[in-house]
Amino acid sequence: MDPLKIDTVKLSPDGSALVIIDQTLLPNRVEYLSLTRTEDIFEAIRSLRVRGAPAIGVAAGFGAYLAAKYAPDEEIEERFYAACDDLAGARPTAVNLFYALNRMKKAMERLSGNVPSAVREGLRAEAQAIMDEDIAISRAIGRHGLALLRPGMGILTHCNAGTLATAKYGTALAPVYAALEAGMEGLRVYCDETRPLLQGARLSAFEMLSAGVDTTLLCDNMASSLMKEGKVDIIFVGCDRVAANGDAANKIGTSAVAILAKHYGIPFYVCAPSSTIDMSLTSGTEIPIEHRAPEEVTELWYEHRMAPEGVKVYNPAFDVTDAELITGIISEHGIAEAPYGPAFRGWGL
Amino acid sequence: MDPLKIDTVKLSPDGSALVIIDQTLLPNRVEYLSLTRTEDIFEAIRSLRVRGAPAIGVAAGFGAYLAAKYAPDEEIEERFYAACDDLAGARPTAVNLFYALNRMKKAMERLSGNVPSAVREGLRAEAQAIMDEDIAISRAIGRHGLALLRPGMGILTHCNAGTLATAKYGTALAPVYAALEAGMEGLRVYCDETRPLLQGARLSAFEMLSAGVDTTLLCDNMASSLMKEGKVDIIFVGCDRVAANGDAANKIGTSAVAILAKHYGIPFYVCAPSSTIDMSLTSGTEIPIEHRAPEEVTELWYEHRMAPEGVKVYNPAFDVTDAELITGIISEHGIAEAPYGPAFRGWGL
Repeated sequence: MDPLKIDTVKLSPDGSALVIIDQTLLPNRVEYLSLTRTEDIFEAIRSLRVRGAPAIGVAAGFGAYLAAKYAPDEEIEERFYAACDDLAGARPTAVNLFYALNRMKKAMERLSGNVPSAVREGLRAEAQAIMDEDIAISRAIGRHGLALLRPGMGILTHCNAGTLATAKYGTALAPVYAALEAGMEGLRVYCDETRPLLQGARLSAFEMLSAGVDTTLLCDNMASSLMKEGKVDIIFVGCDRVAANGDAANKIGTSAVAILAKHYGIPFYVCAPSSTIDMSLTSGTEIPIEHRAPEEVTELWYEHRMAPEGVKVYNPAFDVTDAELITGIISEHGIAEAPYGPAFRGWGL
Repeated sequence: MDPLKIDTVKLSPDGSALVIIDQTLLPNRVEYLSLTRTEDIFEAIRSLRVRGAPAIGVAAGFGAYLAAKYAPDEEIEERFYAACDDLAGARPTAVNLFYALNRMKKAMERLSGNVPSAVREGLRAEAQAIMDEDIAISRAIGRHGLALLRPGMGILTHCNAGTLATAKYGTALAPVYAALEAGMEGLRVYCDETRPLLQGARLSAFEMLSAGVDTTLLCDNMASSLMKEGKVDIIFVGCDRVAANGDAANKIGTSAVAILAKHYGIPFYVCAPSSTIDMSLTSGTEIPIEHRAPEEVTELWYEHRMAPEGVKVYNPAFDVTDAELITGIISEHGIAEAPYGPAFRGWGL
């Protein structure tokens, strides 16, 4: 299967439903879900059936549209805004969710007063535009990242910021797809398995292997050893929110990878659409970090419980990587280096 | 259950069998195995039913004795030496296995020529002495480590170097048991789960919780976030082999913890019997690192396979922590600091 033919998230051709690949079933089963109700879309985001900061933004955009589509004519706005409120509560850290919902709400403000069919059509067009722009942004990130690659390089990534995390191409893995398209040979991709939810093992390894890339899986705690052996030339990770100073929140463990990279002198790049950069936050300490259920660590993926009953569990879903540990931040506008504030403003943020 | 009543490894009271707690079944089942045949003891070490550098040394000592015990009188030496050779191949990294077998072989050289009953009795006494000394060494490590603790401290540990890794008390967790005996209050212990075999989740969390310690489990990649939050005051880890310069091989991921500790300014101590220090090795690059089966990463603990078929897997069991990252090495002789060579020689090594 060509991973670039995976439909991570899209509107069904007849516009009647959000279609997502159920990522909780990968890599063992490839199954698509058609969702129309806000509560089902909320559940799909909350349960990580669709995940990845850009992809949940796209899903939420279509979700807001579908609430309006299925509302009685006289309740379009009410149902639409209620859906926006509901969907905004699905996950707290990634800013893309709020970015997409805000765009949808602004579209509704513009459309308000038109006939119902025009409102619905306008909302659908806005949600589709969010998706189309996400694909274009991912392609641009891939092109900028490709400039850092040479044939034969070893690339380490954490979690999944590939085509499964976006509408297409991904962020951290976009440079790899760009390299494949450009015919660059011999790249090796190393995937941290990314406990507790194993997005690296289940998703990144799956899509890289499907694309024919030389792919090696490792446990998160093996990255230090791998770097010490000289196998890693560059690191690409995705991102859920960037503060104005360049501090970047991403999947838990990202900050550890960055500290190891600094220790071993390996360049560490954060890849994200510029919509991920939240200029309203001075630093990463202001980014809210989601803490998730203990059972994700103690039993979710296991045949038997693998920790004693009663043990306390520390389970943050994200951590913040200090800007000083980041070699560069790659967005659709190019590669920013420290100091990040002026660089971001140069991108019009 | 009081973990100090766990019999990790011992000779049965009638001297007929090696008795171990089957650590592959913890924390879900507490089951003891009685083993007499060399091949079963080899399998128990190889499959990590008994694990932890000191504990496998003790198990191998009894294993060598049992080979002699059950040999026909005229084949005692032959069977004994064959058992020593076999057991030495069970696992390559921990030096304690070779240390114990060498002690047993030296005992055999002394005993050779005596009547069979005296040879067997002498070997049993030597194996028992290895075990008794291990307990005394662990108590001493605990006492030295206790001097570094204060009430309320947060202690991070990786893998399991507790009572389940030794004959009793452990190495990295020995200071915690010493603190409990001394009535020190409010210690918090954080256990890295330690992928792929989850010794932290299954064993350290189990024995710490059983001992009534405030115990929190985290995934390996969460340690950076925990340290950044200021929850960790000191780090204790065990060790499988130390080179003459202080480079220390321990469970995979230990070097990452050490690099994080340095970044956040947290003291990082390696705890090990002095028998773990291998003065024949100049540096850690000479320590052989065991690479284990890919299935440990991709499926062992899981209900479903959680990585795609065909993915390559990087699965070293250990890594080497450079001496420069180690605040101190605690053995039964005290706490050594850099430069380690002279300190080790001061311990008579």
